[in-house]
Amino acid sequence: MALGKVALEEHFLDRNTVDRVLGDPDELARVSAGGGVMPSYYEPIMHRLADFDGERLRAMDEHGIECAVLSLTAPGVQRLTDAETAAAAALAANDLLAEQVERRPDRYAGFATVPLQDPSAAADELGRCVRELGFVGAMVNGYTNVGDAEHAAYYDEPEFDVFWRAAADLGVPVYLHPRPALPGAGRVLEDHPEMVGATWGFGTETATHALRLVLGGVFDRHPDLQVVLGHLGEGLPAMLWRTQYCFDLNPFDKRLDKTLPEYFADNLHVTTSGNFSDQALINAILTVGADRIMFSVDYPYADTAMAAEWIERAPISESDRRKIAHGNARSLLGLG
Amino acid sequence: MALGKVALEEHFLDRNTVDRVLGDPDELARVSAGGGVMPSYYEPIMHRLADFDGERLRAMDEHGIECAVLSLTAPGVQRLTDAETAAAAALAANDLLAEQVERRPDRYAGFATVPLQDPSAAADELGRCVRELGFVGAMVNGYTNVGDAEHAAYYDEPEFDVFWRAAADLGVPVYLHPRPALPGAGRVLEDHPEMVGATWGFGTETATHALRLVLGGVFDRHPDLQVVLGHLGEGLPAMLWRTQYCFDLNPFDKRLDKTLPEYFADNLHVTTSGNFSDQALINAILTVGADRIMFSVDYPYADTAMAAEWIERAPISESDRRKIAHGNARSLLGLG
Amino acid sequence: MALGKVALEEHFLDRNTVDRVLGDPDELARVSAGGGVMPSYYEPIMHRLADFDGERLRAMDEHGIECAVLSLTAPGVQRLTDAETAAAAALAANDLLAEQVERRPDRYAGFATVPLQDPSAAADELGRCVRELGFVGAMVNGYTNVGDAEHAAYYDEPEFDVFWRAAADLGVPVYLHPRPALPGAGRVLEDHPEMVGATWGFGTETATHALRLVLGGVFDRHPDLQVVLGHLGEGLPAMLWRTQYCFDLNPFDKRLDKTLPEYFADNLHVTTSGNFSDQALINAILTVGADRIMFSVDYPYADTAMAAEWIERAPISESDRRKIAHGNARSLLGLG
Amino acid sequence: MALGKVALEEHFLDRNTVDRVLGDPDELARVSAGGGVMPSYYEPIMHRLADFDGERLRAMDEHGIECAVLSLTAPGVQRLTDAETAAAAALAANDLLAEQVERRPDRYAGFATVPLQDPSAAADELGRCVRELGFVGAMVNGYTNVGDAEHAAYYDEPEFDVFWRAAADLGVPVYLHPRPALPGAGRVLEDHPEMVGATWGFGTETATHALRLVLGGVFDRHPDLQVVLGHLGEGLPAMLWRTQYCFDLNPFDKRLDKTLPEYFADNLHVTTSGNFSDQALINAILTVGADRIMFSVDYPYADTAMAAEWIERAPISESDRRKIAHGNARSLLGLG
Ligand SMILES: [Zn+2]
Ligand SMILES: [Zn+2]
Ligand SMILES: [Zn+2]
Ligand SMILES: [Zn+2]
Repeated sequence: MALGKVALEEHFLDRNTVDRVLGDPDELARVSAGGGVMPSYYEPIMHRLADFDGERLRAMDEHGIECAVLSLTAPGVQRLTDAETAAAAALAANDLLAEQVERRPDRYAGFATVPLQDPSAAADELGRCVRELGFVGAMVNGYTNVGDAEHAAYYDEPEFDVFWRAAADLGVPVYLHPRPALPGAGRVLEDHPEMVGATWGFGTETATHALRLVLGGVFDRHPDLQVVLGHLGEGLPAMLWRTQYCFDLNPFDKRLDKTLPEYFADNLHVTTSGNFSDQALINAILTVGADRIMFSVDYPYADTAMAAEWIERAPISESDRRKIAHGNARSLLGLG
Repeated sequence: MALGKVALEEHFLDRNTVDRVLGDPDELARVSAGGGVMPSYYEPIMHRLADFDGERLRAMDEHGIECAVLSLTAPGVQRLTDAETAAAAALAANDLLAEQVERRPDRYAGFATVPLQDPSAAADELGRCVRELGFVGAMVNGYTNVGDAEHAAYYDEPEFDVFWRAAADLGVPVYLHPRPALPGAGRVLEDHPEMVGATWGFGTETATHALRLVLGGVFDRHPDLQVVLGHLGEGLPAMLWRTQYCFDLNPFDKRLDKTLPEYFADNLHVTTSGNFSDQALINAILTVGADRIMFSVDYPYADTAMAAEWIERAPISESDRRKIAHGNARSLLGLG
Repeated sequence: MALGKVALEEHFLDRNTVDRVLGDPDELARVSAGGGVMPSYYEPIMHRLADFDGERLRAMDEHGIECAVLSLTAPGVQRLTDAETAAAAALAANDLLAEQVERRPDRYAGFATVPLQDPSAAADELGRCVRELGFVGAMVNGYTNVGDAEHAAYYDEPEFDVFWRAAADLGVPVYLHPRPALPGAGRVLEDHPEMVGATWGFGTETATHALRLVLGGVFDRHPDLQVVLGHLGEGLPAMLWRTQYCFDLNPFDKRLDKTLPEYFADNLHVTTSGNFSDQALINAILTVGADRIMFSVDYPYADTAMAAEWIERAPISESDRRKIAHGNARSLLGLG
Repeated sequence: MALGKVALEEHFLDRNTVDRVLGDPDELARVSAGGGVMPSYYEPIMHRLADFDGERLRAMDEHGIECAVLSLTAPGVQRLTDAETAAAAALAANDLLAEQVERRPDRYAGFATVPLQDPSAAADELGRCVRELGFVGAMVNGYTNVGDAEHAAYYDEPEFDVFWRAAADLGVPVYLHPRPALPGAGRVLEDHPEMVGATWGFGTETATHALRLVLGGVFDRHPDLQVVLGHLGEGLPAMLWRTQYCFDLNPFDKRLDKTLPEYFADNLHVTTSGNFSDQALINAILTVGADRIMFSVDYPYADTAMAAEWIERAPISESDRRKIAHGNARSLLGLG
């Protein structure tokens, strides 16, 4: 029996940028290194990022992915230090995505790119995307650079409350996607380019940022806010107990309304993007709960066939399989 | 039926240092901040660190801990930048510990403090501790500072081969214990002192360092080497699949003889220190295997009663409970 | 934070019967043996069965059980061989229960006793109980005797379709509760009175009966029918894979519309009654799914405090804990 | 990396019997019904039962099964009511198997058929098989008929102590394999021929018999005795908690030295025969422990390829995978 799926960490990049990068080996090398990948890996990926009608759709058809929620690939606009440039880039990306969603509204939905260099502008753009373009949430790629590549803002910082409030009021989730750590943190990965990106560094940076949100009280200030983490939670779920135990012993100045497991029950979701692991899924079910887990591939960085075949056969109940494969996402995102 | 236990992440500090720190509020504040804890938390801890005959032993008696393998508390000698100072400090700590072990050889065993500022000296001191003092391995607290607090060495770097070879030849494990990340990585934890230490930062730093060892080929060069991680693996076990998947796609210049799960089967162990979580234990059993999991408390930073009661009732088989509680440690450390 | 609970395998017996049994040692012995228990165990149980205002309610208050769905204790009316006697007994039990539910409608709900000696009459009585008395389903204690204690009817047999249709049409679940196997099956338990009842025999008999329902096509004929099993599924969930595999190899004359896991997703539920096991719960979550698991105690046969404390601390997500503790039951039974 | 395997529930039948049964449709029908299978399923099975050099070996080669421990297929000699006939049949089967083991000692090992109609004779034959033929244990197919097909003996009954003592003294395990329940228990499976055998009835009968052994004190009288159950424990592991809880409440006349989980740690093992289920394996790991779980296929009744591919990929640690695939069996059976 075919298992319908919805996937929500599926990336694109505009054709112009793809062509520009692929036409310049230095740029390809820079972009690849920035993503913690090798140019030989990234080249075919780039082609797939720009495709909306060919291989992407065929892979969805072949593997039962009824709807893919698309997002501008990392780092999105997060690395642009000028607020206006970022706003323009976000607008362009969202309008481009809106065109694709409009062409195939039954197959594609959209996560907005938001220029968090200016949180108010980001809130406004999110509102435009949701109300006018019919988007279902936002995709944010880790910290936003401030001033230069060495400096950043993290989203528990008070200036981002306007953005979180907007997302909560609009009733749409925000997907906190990885990007590599700030350069200042590079020593621990020195001589290990293979650890910078998805293999490891993405996870620790993103889990740390997510924990900042929780311990920084974002979900106490915005109890209805929904945030999504990929990769089955970037390593957070297995450490929930220890983190809570140690926090309770040394909270410093932080006070929380709830426990970490309660924030996962009320505010956080995880997807299976790029983490097609039975054990990690079982751990997520036992810490986050199947209601808060959603299938995703991480196209084109991870393999659609592998992801789909895995969720179809994972050692879980049929009840949970259906929710994880499509039920939770359709419900959370109002996809019907 | 009483479940005998062996615990192996149980720390001490010499009475002089404890008195000095406790006698100087600034020093207590500095040391506390360095460990990511509050002075109010650390003060009673310090008293317990210096105790060998009172509360420590009573807690062991009450909770079935037959033997505790003691180690100098973090950061040990890792933060001393002068090699000779470090060597002297290590020697003093080891001799002090040896006295305690000799007084109670049936209750205490020793992990050596090793001055990795000079890997050869560290190898020699480890040899002395094992052959002359009867110690059962080494405890290393993350990176060793080089020159100043901003700079460090990580142990997959080639100069440490002499140390790993010594440990492998001596047939004793090396426990890679946490310490906070280098200051350069501090931005991501800014305004979150509560995340610097055990609550979060310890884990990401240590898991990253452990993964450096694996991907840096330490276990290929030293196939018999055994390394122990605390806190049920510092978050690594739940991410093994993804890390392997992504590494296979982008290995860069790294080539490994084995898969990550195989390194956990052959070279890595985890303890339960400060992570008395059923779900994390189940995840460890399904990724690392109960043969490679050992009970520990993390005394005096975590609660002995909580740890002991948890392992006695955790939802695992009796066969595994016995191995985890004492069997694996007695076997690995030759405790008999 | 107090975890509200709903429990749905909570039994009663009318005061008259209790007094009669307790007043006659032979009768107490007979009833005890019939339930696979020792008279010394059953005597205090009997007192608790007849109580509605004292200990039962206090235990509920103390342990957060907001609502208990009550049912006539096993074997209910299943052992009465005369249809009219059974119908009268069922009516009396239901009217007695209705009085109690009416006195405390916020604390008690009712499962109907149904005289399956005459399936049409059982359907009618169920309808009366649901529509007029506000009951939320039926409790059936295994097979119904036919003619004598040696002979029985099982509910996949065609004459029971009228009853299943009624339950499905009324939109209420039927709880299939244990009773011991028929006397003809007694050899395998000879000299093992301790295995006759809850310790073992209840489980195999009930799981077998439940599997008869599935393989006999009851859920294909009545796709909306909901059946509840206690004791985390009487052993069925852990054997689902093997049962399906072997059935597929040798289906004989049976043809099913769905797979066993699908019947658990669509038609079957389990409760935690008398099975406060982390491992069995985890297995149920991974085979049945947390949406289909509901808390229950099995009062007064199992301990309320043990049950409540267990579900509050079981190694599962908060999201699932809430559903299992009360969410699923409130939803399934329309308790609001 | 090829995962070597040992399988220990792998059956044979002598060529004469196979030819006789296949040459007589009524006999094939009778034998099939007796095993709860359809003749169309059993016919090719029968051919495979008699093969030692062809398909059996090729399947082992292709799927990494280094060694298969062979046993006479159920019901073995258990249904023969005359002790001398049973003894002669056992002897013949053992001698036939010994020939095959001698031809391929690196690929085949033997479980003895034992004529439990006369427990002393069974003990003697087991001794002969172990000491003279080099067999590694015994395979027993449920109860032994006494007098006729309606009556049987179960092995906790005192007359079998001589046999258990022999097995314990010889240091070899006894595999308790299924057979269908006694005819007297047939009502619960009436009209469900598909439930009589492996699909369901095998499991309940065998689990019940195994529990008789435990509660009947066999392992208290013979603390070194090792008994193996197939099919991941025939449903017992998931019910251990409840069985213990209820037994403690109503032990009747039974007193045990240990708890059920302790008997699984000290005396009982399970194999994966015919139960290639991730969830059931996880449950077994958490209740029985990976040290007590061994790979098996149940050849030719279950599919070798399915079994082998499953254990190679099951969501468990590499450490446990190796033990389950071959390590535990080599150790338990002294296969080296
Ligand atoms: Zn992604
Ligand atoms: Zn520690
Ligand atoms: Zn009950
Ligand atoms: Zn078999």
